[in-house]
Amino acid sequence: MTDLRKHVEVCFTPGEYPYYKDEFEIVVVIDVLRATSAICAAFDNGIKSIIPVPTVEEAWEYKKKGYLAGAERKGQIVEGFDFGNSPFSYMNEEFRGKDVVLTTTNGTKSLDVAKDAEIVVVGSFLNLQVLSEWLAQQDKNVLCLCSGWQDKFNLEDTICAGAISDYLISTGNFTSDEDSSIASKYLYLSAKDNYFGYLKSSSHRRRLKNLNLNDDIKYCLTPNQSNSIPILRNGKLVKL
Amino acid sequence: MTDLRKHVEVCFTPGEYPYYKDEFEIVVVIDVLRATSAICAAFDNGIKSIIPVPTVEEAWEYKKKGYLAGAERKGQIVEGFDFGNSPFSYMNEEFRGKDVVLTTTNGTKSLDVAKDAEIVVVGSFLNLQVLSEWLAQQDKNVLCLCSGWQDKFNLEDTICAGAISDYLISTGNFTSDEDSSIASKYLYLSAKDNYFGYLKSSSHRRRLKNLNLNDDIKYCLTPNQSNSIPILRNGKLVKL
Repeated sequence: MTDLRKHVEVCFTPGEYPYYKDEFEIVVVIDVLRATSAICAAFDNGIKSIIPVPTVEEAWEYKKKGYLAGAERKGQIVEGFDFGNSPFSYMNEEFRGKDVVLTTTNGTKSLDVAKDAEIVVVGSFLNLQVLSEWLAQQDKNVLCLCSGWQDKFNLEDTICAGAISDYLISTGNFTSDEDSSIASKYLYLSAKDNYFGYLKSSSHRRRLKNLNLNDDIKYCLTPNQSNSIPILRNGKLVKL
Repeated sequence: MTDLRKHVEVCFTPGEYPYYKDEFEIVVVIDVLRATSAICAAFDNGIKSIIPVPTVEEAWEYKKKGYLAGAERKGQIVEGFDFGNSPFSYMNEEFRGKDVVLTTTNGTKSLDVAKDAEIVVVGSFLNLQVLSEWLAQQDKNVLCLCSGWQDKFNLEDTICAGAISDYLISTGNFTSDEDSSIASKYLYLSAKDNYFGYLKSSSHRRRLKNLNLNDDIKYCLTPNQSNSIPILRNGKLVKL
Protein backbone atom coordinates (compact mmCIF):
# COMPACT_ATOMS: atom_id res chain seq x y z
CA MET A 1 0.00 0.00 0.00
CA THR A 2 1.36 3.38 -0.95
CA ASP A 3 1.96 5.76 1.92
CA LEU A 4 0.09 8.90 0.94
CA ARG A 5 1.25 10.90 3.92
CA LYS A 6 3.25 14.05 3.32
CA HIS A 7 6.64 14.62 4.91
CA VAL A 8 7.48 17.11 7.61
CA GLU A 9 11.22 17.29 8.21
CA VAL A 10 13.62 19.53 10.10
CA CYS A 11 16.85 21.09 8.83
CA PHE A 12 19.00 22.41 11.67
CA THR A 13 20.95 25.15 9.89
CA PRO A 14 20.84 27.19 6.67
CA GLY A 15 24.16 25.57 5.71
CA GLU A 16 22.54 22.13 5.53
CA TYR A 17 19.57 23.33 3.45
CA PRO A 18 21.06 22.09 0.14
CA TYR A 19 20.92 18.50 1.49
CA TYR A 20 17.17 18.78 2.10
CA LYS A 21 15.59 21.32 -0.21
CA ASP A 22 14.50 19.32 -3.25
CA GLU A 23 11.64 17.39 -1.72
CA PHE A 24 9.62 20.16 -0.09
CA GLU A 25 7.03 22.55 -1.46
CA ILE A 26 6.76 24.56 1.76
CA VAL A 27 9.68 25.88 3.81
CA VAL A 28 8.98 27.27 7.29
CA VAL A 29 11.80 29.60 8.33
CA ILE A 30 12.29 29.68 12.10
CA ASP A 31 14.43 32.06 14.15
CA VAL A 32 12.75 32.09 17.54
CA LEU A 33 15.26 34.44 19.19
CA ARG A 34 14.28 36.80 17.67
CA ALA A 35 13.84 37.53 13.96
CA THR A 36 10.83 35.40 13.08
CA SER A 37 9.14 36.26 16.39
CA ALA A 38 9.65 39.95 15.64
CA ILE A 39 8.25 39.47 12.12
CA CYS A 40 5.07 37.87 13.50
CA ALA A 41 4.72 40.68 16.05
CA ALA A 42 5.19 43.24 13.30
CA PHE A 43 2.29 41.89 11.25
CA ASP A 44 0.09 41.71 14.34
CA ASN A 45 0.78 45.40 14.67
CA GLY A 46 -0.30 46.30 11.16
CA ILE A 47 2.97 46.50 9.25
CA LYS A 48 2.33 46.28 5.49
CA SER A 49 5.43 44.32 4.49
CA ILE A 50 8.91 43.34 5.59
CA ILE A 51 11.71 43.21 3.07
CA PRO A 52 14.32 40.80 4.45
CA VAL A 53 17.85 41.48 3.22
CA PRO A 54 20.93 39.37 4.00
CA THR A 55 23.49 42.18 4.48
CA VAL A 56 23.77 45.37 6.53
CA GLU A 57 24.88 47.20 3.37
CA GLU A 58 21.61 46.39 1.60
CA ALA A 59 19.60 47.52 4.62
CA TRP A 60 21.58 50.76 4.62
CA GLU A 61 20.85 51.38 0.93
CA TYR A 62 17.12 51.12 1.67
CA LYS A 63 17.48 53.41 4.68
CA LYS A 64 19.12 56.06 2.51
CA LYS A 65 16.10 55.86 0.17
CA GLY A 66 13.82 56.71 3.10
CA TYR A 67 12.66 53.26 4.18
CA LEU A 68 12.24 52.26 7.82
CA ALA A 69 15.20 49.89 8.08
CA GLY A 70 16.42 47.72 10.96
CA ALA A 71 19.65 45.80 11.42
CA GLU A 72 20.81 43.39 14.08
CA ARG A 73 24.15 41.62 14.41
CA LYS A 74 25.24 39.46 17.37
CA GLY A 75 22.09 40.36 19.32
CA GLN A 76 22.58 44.12 19.09
CA ILE A 77 21.25 46.96 16.92
CA VAL A 78 23.86 47.88 14.31
CA GLU A 79 25.19 51.42 14.74
CA GLY A 80 23.32 53.93 12.62
CA PHE A 81 20.05 51.97 12.66
CA ASP A 82 17.07 52.70 14.91
CA PHE A 83 15.89 49.16 15.55
CA GLY A 84 16.93 45.52 15.25
CA ASN A 85 14.99 42.36 15.88
CA SER A 86 13.31 43.00 19.21
CA PRO A 87 9.58 42.24 18.82
CA PHE A 88 8.82 45.27 21.00
CA SER A 89 10.36 47.62 18.41
CA TYR A 90 7.50 46.84 16.07
CA MET A 91 4.69 47.58 18.52
CA ASN A 92 4.74 51.18 17.47
CA GLU A 93 2.18 53.35 15.67
CA GLU A 94 4.91 54.69 13.41
CA PHE A 95 5.24 51.28 11.68
CA ARG A 96 1.57 50.75 10.80
CA GLY A 97 0.91 50.39 7.08
CA LYS A 98 4.62 50.75 6.26
CA ASP A 99 7.15 48.67 4.34
CA VAL A 100 10.02 47.84 6.66
CA VAL A 101 13.49 46.55 5.72
CA LEU A 102 15.28 44.14 8.06
CA THR A 103 18.59 42.31 8.26
CA THR A 104 19.50 40.01 11.17
CA THR A 105 22.38 37.68 12.06
CA ASN A 106 20.59 34.44 11.30
CA GLY A 107 16.91 34.78 10.39
CA THR A 108 17.16 36.88 7.25
CA LYS A 109 19.99 34.65 6.08
CA SER A 110 17.75 31.57 6.16
CA LEU A 111 14.97 33.50 4.40
CA ASP A 112 17.50 34.27 1.69
CA VAL A 113 18.66 30.65 1.46
CA ALA A 114 15.07 29.38 1.15
CA LYS A 115 13.73 32.07 -1.18
CA ASP A 116 13.39 29.84 -4.26
CA ALA A 117 11.09 27.33 -2.59
CA GLU A 118 7.50 27.20 -3.88
CA ILE A 119 6.12 28.62 -0.61
CA VAL A 120 8.14 30.26 2.18
CA VAL A 121 6.42 31.12 5.46
CA VAL A 122 7.68 32.37 8.81
CA GLY A 123 7.31 30.35 12.02
CA SER A 124 7.85 31.04 15.70
CA PHE A 125 6.30 30.05 19.00
CA LEU A 126 4.11 33.14 18.65
CA ASN A 127 2.22 31.82 15.63
CA LEU A 128 2.67 28.11 16.37
CA GLN A 129 -0.99 27.11 16.43
CA VAL A 130 -2.29 29.22 13.55
CA LEU A 131 0.65 28.24 11.35
CA SER A 132 0.46 24.52 12.20
CA GLU A 133 -3.25 24.42 11.39
CA TRP A 134 -2.66 26.18 8.08
CA LEU A 135 0.19 23.81 7.18
CA ALA A 136 -2.01 20.82 7.95
CA GLN A 137 -4.53 22.02 5.35
CA GLN A 138 -2.06 22.44 2.47
CA ASP A 139 -1.40 18.79 1.58
CA LYS A 140 2.22 19.59 0.76
CA ASN A 141 5.61 18.46 2.07
CA VAL A 142 6.96 20.78 4.77
CA LEU A 143 10.55 21.54 5.70
CA CYS A 144 11.17 23.43 8.94
CA LEU A 145 14.39 25.40 8.38
CA CYS A 146 16.01 26.43 11.66
CA SER A 147 18.20 29.49 11.46
CA GLY A 148 20.66 28.38 14.12
CA TRP A 149 23.37 30.67 15.41
CA GLN A 150 26.13 31.58 12.97
CA ASP A 151 25.72 28.33 11.07
CA LYS A 152 25.58 26.20 14.21
CA PHE A 153 22.63 24.27 15.62
CA ASN A 154 20.46 26.02 18.19
CA LEU A 155 18.02 24.57 20.64
CA GLU A 156 15.10 27.01 20.55
CA ASP A 157 14.55 26.84 16.78
CA THR A 158 14.80 23.06 16.91
CA ILE A 159 12.18 22.80 19.65
CA CYS A 160 9.83 25.09 17.72
CA ALA A 161 10.35 22.90 14.62
CA GLY A 162 9.65 19.84 16.77
CA ALA A 163 6.39 21.42 17.95
CA ILE A 164 5.24 22.05 14.36
CA SER A 165 6.22 18.50 13.32
CA ASP A 166 4.50 16.98 16.33
CA TYR A 167 1.26 18.78 15.44
CA LEU A 168 1.39 17.75 11.78
CA ILE A 169 2.19 14.12 12.59
CA SER A 170 -0.70 14.07 15.10
CA THR A 171 -3.12 14.79 12.24
CA GLY A 172 -2.25 11.39 10.75
CA ASN A 173 -1.48 12.97 7.37
CA PHE A 174 2.23 13.57 7.88
CA THR A 175 5.30 11.48 8.63
CA SER A 176 8.99 12.16 9.40
CA ASP A 177 11.97 10.15 8.18
CA GLU A 178 15.06 12.15 8.98
CA ASP A 179 16.94 11.73 12.25
CA SER A 180 17.00 15.53 12.64
CA SER A 181 13.18 15.46 12.68
CA ILE A 182 13.06 12.61 15.17
CA ALA A 183 15.53 14.41 17.47
CA SER A 184 13.53 17.66 17.21
CA LYS A 185 10.40 15.87 18.28
CA TYR A 186 12.15 14.20 21.23
CA LEU A 187 13.59 17.56 22.31
CA TYR A 188 10.21 19.31 21.92
CA LEU A 189 8.45 16.64 24.00
CA SER A 190 10.90 17.06 26.87
CA ALA A 191 10.80 20.88 26.64
CA LYS A 192 7.12 21.58 26.08
CA ASP A 193 6.02 21.92 29.68
CA ASN A 194 8.56 24.62 30.41
CA TYR A 195 10.34 26.20 27.44
CA PHE A 196 11.83 28.91 29.56
CA GLY A 197 13.37 26.49 32.08
CA TYR A 198 14.47 24.03 29.40
CA LEU A 199 16.28 26.69 27.44
CA LYS A 200 17.90 28.19 30.52
CA SER A 201 21.28 26.72 29.62
CA SER A 202 21.00 27.37 25.88
CA SER A 203 23.79 29.45 24.44
CA HIS A 204 21.52 32.01 22.82
CA ARG A 205 19.52 32.60 25.98
CA ARG A 206 22.75 33.24 27.85
CA ARG A 207 23.89 35.58 25.10
CA LEU A 208 20.67 37.63 25.15
CA LYS A 209 20.44 37.60 28.93
CA ASN A 210 23.88 39.21 29.02
CA LEU A 211 22.43 41.91 26.77
CA ASN A 212 19.52 42.47 29.20
CA LEU A 213 17.00 41.03 26.76
CA ASN A 214 15.15 38.79 29.18
CA ASP A 215 11.77 40.42 28.36
CA ASP A 216 12.33 39.67 24.69
CA ILE A 217 13.12 36.05 25.51
CA LYS A 218 10.02 35.59 27.64
CA TYR A 219 7.83 37.11 24.93
CA CYS A 220 9.39 34.96 22.17
CA LEU A 221 8.97 31.73 24.17
CA THR A 222 5.27 32.27 24.91
CA PRO A 223 3.25 30.34 22.31
CA ASN A 224 0.19 31.47 20.38
CA GLN A 225 0.13 35.20 20.90
CA SER A 226 -0.02 35.91 17.16
CA ASN A 227 -2.51 35.15 14.41
CA SER A 228 -0.16 36.17 11.59
CA ILE A 229 1.31 33.85 9.00
CA PRO A 230 3.98 35.88 7.22
CA ILE A 231 4.59 34.61 3.67
CA LEU A 232 7.29 35.55 1.16
CA ARG A 233 5.94 37.07 -2.09
CA ASN A 234 8.26 38.62 -4.66
CA GLY A 235 11.00 39.16 -2.11
CA LYS A 236 8.69 40.74 0.48
CA LEU A 237 7.09 39.20 3.53
CA VAL A 238 3.39 39.97 3.73
CA LYS A 239 0.61 38.70 5.95
CA LEU A 240 -1.24 35.74 4.45
CA MET B 1 37.07 33.43 39.46
CA THR B 2 38.41 31.88 36.32
CA ASP B 3 36.68 28.72 35.16
CA LEU B 4 39.48 26.21 34.73
CA ARG B 5 37.25 23.49 33.35
CA LYS B 6 37.92 22.16 29.88
CA HIS B 7 35.26 22.07 27.19
CA VAL B 8 33.58 19.03 25.75
CA GLU B 9 31.42 19.92 22.76
CA VAL B 10 29.59 18.06 20.02
CA CYS B 11 29.69 18.72 16.28
CA PHE B 12 26.85 16.96 14.44
CA THR B 13 28.38 16.56 10.99
CA PRO B 14 31.77 16.74 9.25
CA GLY B 15 30.43 19.70 7.24
CA GLU B 16 30.10 21.81 10.39
CA TYR B 17 33.59 20.96 11.67
CA PRO B 18 35.11 24.24 10.41
CA TYR B 19 32.80 26.17 12.78
CA TYR B 20 34.14 24.26 15.80
CA LYS B 21 37.66 23.03 15.19
CA ASP B 22 39.90 25.81 16.48
CA GLU B 23 39.30 25.41 20.18
CA PHE B 24 39.91 21.69 20.66
CA GLU B 25 43.08 19.69 21.13
CA ILE B 26 41.33 16.32 20.98
CA VAL B 27 38.80 15.26 18.35
CA VAL B 28 36.81 12.05 18.93
CA VAL B 29 35.51 10.74 15.60
CA ILE B 30 32.25 8.81 16.00
CA ASP B 31 30.45 6.67 13.42
CA VAL B 32 28.50 4.18 15.51
CA LEU B 33 26.83 2.42 12.56
CA ARG B 34 29.37 1.13 11.73
CA ALA B 35 32.85 2.43 10.87
CA THR B 36 34.18 3.42 14.28
CA SER B 37 32.60 0.37 15.90
CA ALA B 38 34.30 -1.84 13.32
CA ILE B 39 37.62 -0.07 13.93
CA CYS B 40 37.41 -0.76 17.69
CA ALA B 41 36.51 -4.40 16.99
CA ALA B 42 39.44 -4.67 14.59
CA PHE B 43 41.97 -3.59 17.23
CA ASP B 44 40.43 -5.92 19.79
CA ASN B 45 41.18 -8.64 17.29
CA GLY B 46 44.83 -7.80 16.89
CA ILE B 47 44.93 -5.73 13.70
CA LYS B 48 48.20 -3.76 13.53
CA SER B 49 46.87 -0.62 11.87
CA ILE B 50 44.00 0.79 9.83
CA ILE B 51 44.70 3.26 7.07
CA PRO B 52 41.50 5.30 6.58
CA VAL B 53 41.10 6.73 3.09
CA PRO B 54 38.30 9.01 1.91
CA THR B 55 37.72 7.55 -1.57
CA VAL B 56 37.09 4.12 -3.08
CA GLU B 57 39.79 4.86 -5.68
CA GLU B 58 42.44 5.27 -2.98
CA ALA B 59 41.34 2.02 -1.32
CA TRP B 60 41.58 0.30 -4.69
CA GLU B 61 45.15 1.57 -5.24
CA TYR B 62 46.17 0.01 -1.92
CA LYS B 63 44.40 -3.23 -2.81
CA LYS B 64 46.36 -3.45 -6.06
CA LYS B 65 49.57 -3.12 -4.03
CA GLY B 66 48.55 -6.18 -1.99
CA TYR B 67 46.98 -4.58 1.07
CA LEU B 68 43.86 -5.96 2.75
CA ALA B 69 41.43 -3.23 1.71
CA GLY B 70 37.76 -2.72 2.56
CA ALA B 71 35.19 -0.34 1.08
CA GLU B 72 31.62 0.45 2.07
CA ARG B 73 29.17 2.82 0.41
CA LYS B 74 25.49 3.22 1.37
CA GLY B 75 25.69 0.34 3.82
CA GLN B 76 27.02 -2.21 1.33
CA ILE B 77 30.40 -3.64 0.38
CA VAL B 78 31.65 -1.98 -2.81
CA GLU B 79 31.95 -4.41 -5.72
CA GLY B 80 35.44 -5.82 -6.04
CA PHE B 81 36.21 -5.54 -2.34
CA ASP B 82 36.07 -8.39 0.18
CA PHE B 83 34.80 -6.50 3.21
CA GLY B 84 33.24 -3.22 4.29
CA ASN B 85 32.50 -1.87 7.73
CA SER B 86 30.82 -4.77 9.48
CA PRO B 87 32.59 -5.32 12.83
CA PHE B 88 32.26 -9.07 12.26
CA SER B 89 34.49 -8.89 9.16
CA TYR B 90 37.44 -8.06 11.37
CA MET B 91 37.04 -10.97 13.78
CA ASN B 92 39.16 -13.12 11.55
CA GLU B 93 42.58 -14.67 12.04
CA GLU B 94 43.63 -13.46 8.59
CA PHE B 95 43.62 -9.84 9.81
CA ARG B 96 45.87 -10.30 12.88
CA GLY B 97 49.06 -8.24 12.77
CA LYS B 98 48.13 -6.72 9.41
CA ASP B 99 47.76 -3.20 8.07
CA VAL B 100 44.24 -2.77 6.72
CA VAL B 101 42.94 -0.05 4.40
CA LEU B 102 39.34 1.15 4.79
CA THR B 103 36.99 3.62 3.14
CA THR B 104 33.38 4.10 4.32
CA THR B 105 30.47 6.44 3.46
CA ASN B 106 30.76 8.65 6.51
CA GLY B 107 33.33 7.56 9.10
CA THR B 108 36.51 7.77 7.06
CA LYS B 109 35.33 11.13 5.74
CA SER B 110 35.22 12.59 9.25
CA LEU B 111 38.61 11.08 10.04
CA ASP B 112 39.91 12.89 6.97
CA VAL B 113 38.25 16.17 7.97
CA ALA B 114 39.72 16.00 11.50
CA LYS B 115 43.19 14.75 10.60
CA ASP B 116 45.03 17.99 11.41
CA ALA B 117 43.84 18.16 15.01
CA GLU B 118 46.51 17.66 17.70
CA ILE B 119 45.02 14.31 18.75
CA VAL B 120 42.41 12.26 16.85
CA VAL B 121 40.87 9.20 18.50
CA VAL B 122 38.02 6.91 17.53
CA GLY B 123 34.87 6.54 19.65
CA SER B 124 31.88 4.22 19.64
CA PHE B 125 29.57 2.61 22.17
CA LEU B 126 31.98 -0.33 22.17
CA ASN B 127 34.84 1.62 23.77
CA LEU B 128 32.69 4.20 25.59
CA GLN B 129 34.00 3.59 29.11
CA VAL B 130 37.68 3.10 28.36
CA LEU B 131 37.74 6.10 26.02
CA SER B 132 35.79 8.39 28.40
CA GLU B 133 38.15 7.56 31.28
CA TRP B 134 41.17 8.24 29.11
CA LEU B 135 39.74 11.57 27.88
CA ALA B 136 39.04 12.60 31.48
CA GLN B 137 42.76 12.20 32.27
CA GLN B 138 44.10 14.34 29.40
CA ASP B 139 43.20 17.83 30.68
CA LYS B 140 42.46 18.97 27.12
CA ASN B 141 39.41 20.35 25.30
CA VAL B 142 37.45 17.61 23.55
CA LEU B 143 35.30 17.82 20.42
CA CYS B 144 33.07 14.85 19.61
CA LEU B 145 32.74 14.82 15.82
CA CYS B 146 29.72 12.86 14.67
CA SER B 147 29.97 11.43 11.18
CA GLY B 148 26.26 11.73 10.39
CA TRP B 149 24.78 10.27 7.24
CA GLN B 150 25.80 11.89 3.97
CA ASP B 151 26.36 15.25 5.66
CA LYS B 152 23.11 15.11 7.62
CA PHE B 153 22.64 14.75 11.38
CA ASN B 154 22.20 11.23 12.75
CA LEU B 155 20.82 10.10 16.06
CA GLU B 156 23.14 7.24 17.06
CA ASP B 157 26.38 9.23 16.76
CA THR B 158 24.79 12.12 18.65
CA ILE B 159 23.71 9.87 21.52
CA CYS B 160 27.19 8.34 21.74
CA ALA B 161 28.66 11.88 21.82
CA GLY B 162 26.14 12.76 24.54
CA ALA B 163 27.28 9.75 26.58
CA ILE B 164 30.94 10.81 26.36
CA SER B 165 30.04 14.42 27.28
CA ASP B 166 27.87 13.31 30.17
CA TYR B 167 30.74 11.26 31.61
CA LEU B 168 33.27 14.08 31.25
CA ILE B 169 30.93 16.68 32.77
CA SER B 170 30.22 14.31 35.67
CA THR B 171 33.93 14.44 36.61
CA GLY B 172 33.51 18.14 37.43
CA ASN B 173 36.45 19.06 35.20
CA PHE B 174 34.52 19.67 31.98
CA THR B 175 31.74 21.95 30.81
CA SER B 176 29.64 22.35 27.63
CA ASP B 177 28.53 25.62 26.04
CA GLU B 178 27.16 24.78 22.63
CA ASP B 179 23.49 24.00 22.06
CA SER B 180 24.51 20.94 20.04
CA SER B 181 26.24 19.59 23.16
CA ILE B 182 23.24 20.35 25.37
CA ALA B 183 20.90 18.63 22.90
CA SER B 184 23.21 15.59 22.69
CA LYS B 185 23.14 15.24 26.44
CA TYR B 186 19.34 15.51 26.58
CA LEU B 187 19.01 12.90 23.82
CA TYR B 188 21.51 10.58 25.52
CA LEU B 189 19.70 10.83 28.85
CA SER B 190 16.38 9.83 27.29
CA ALA B 191 17.98 7.03 25.23
CA LYS B 192 20.39 5.48 27.70
CA ASP B 193 18.14 2.86 29.21
CA ASN B 194 17.35 1.33 25.85
CA TYR B 195 19.50 2.39 22.91
CA PHE B 196 18.06 -0.27 20.67
CA GLY B 197 14.43 0.74 21.30
CA TYR B 198 15.19 4.46 21.16
CA LEU B 199 16.90 4.15 17.81
CA LYS B 200 14.20 1.94 16.36
CA SER B 201 12.84 4.77 14.24
CA SER B 202 16.22 6.21 13.28
CA SER B 203 16.84 6.42 9.57
CA HIS B 204 20.12 4.56 9.65
CA ARG B 205 18.73 1.67 11.62
CA ARG B 206 15.92 1.33 9.10
CA ARG B 207 18.48 1.48 6.28
CA LEU B 208 20.67 -1.26 7.78
CA LYS B 209 17.72 -3.39 8.82
CA ASN B 210 16.61 -3.42 5.20
CA LEU B 211 20.07 -4.76 4.37
CA ASN B 212 19.66 -7.56 6.96
CA LEU B 213 22.27 -6.05 9.24
CA ASN B 214 20.36 -6.35 12.51
CA ASP B 215 23.19 -8.35 14.16
CA ASP B 216 25.63 -5.58 13.31
CA ILE B 217 23.29 -3.01 14.82
CA LYS B 218 22.85 -4.96 18.06
CA TYR B 219 26.61 -5.41 18.38
CA CYS B 220 27.35 -1.72 17.70
CA LEU B 221 24.77 -0.53 20.24
CA THR B 222 26.07 -2.67 23.10
CA PRO B 223 28.41 -0.51 25.21
CA ASN B 224 31.80 -1.41 26.63
CA GLN B 225 32.76 -4.55 24.75
CA SER B 226 36.11 -3.09 23.66
CA ASN B 227 39.22 -1.93 25.49
CA SER B 228 40.77 -0.33 22.41
CA ILE B 229 41.35 3.37 21.92
CA PRO B 230 42.28 3.77 18.25
CA ILE B 231 44.42 6.88 17.67
CA LEU B 232 45.54 8.52 14.42
CA ARG B 233 49.33 8.65 13.97
CA ASN B 234 50.91 9.72 10.67
CA GLY B 235 47.76 8.92 8.73
CA LYS B 236 47.31 5.46 10.31
CA LEU B 237 45.03 4.40 13.11
CA VAL B 238 46.86 2.37 15.73
CA LYS B 239 45.90 1.13 19.17
CA LEU B 240 46.90 3.52 21.93
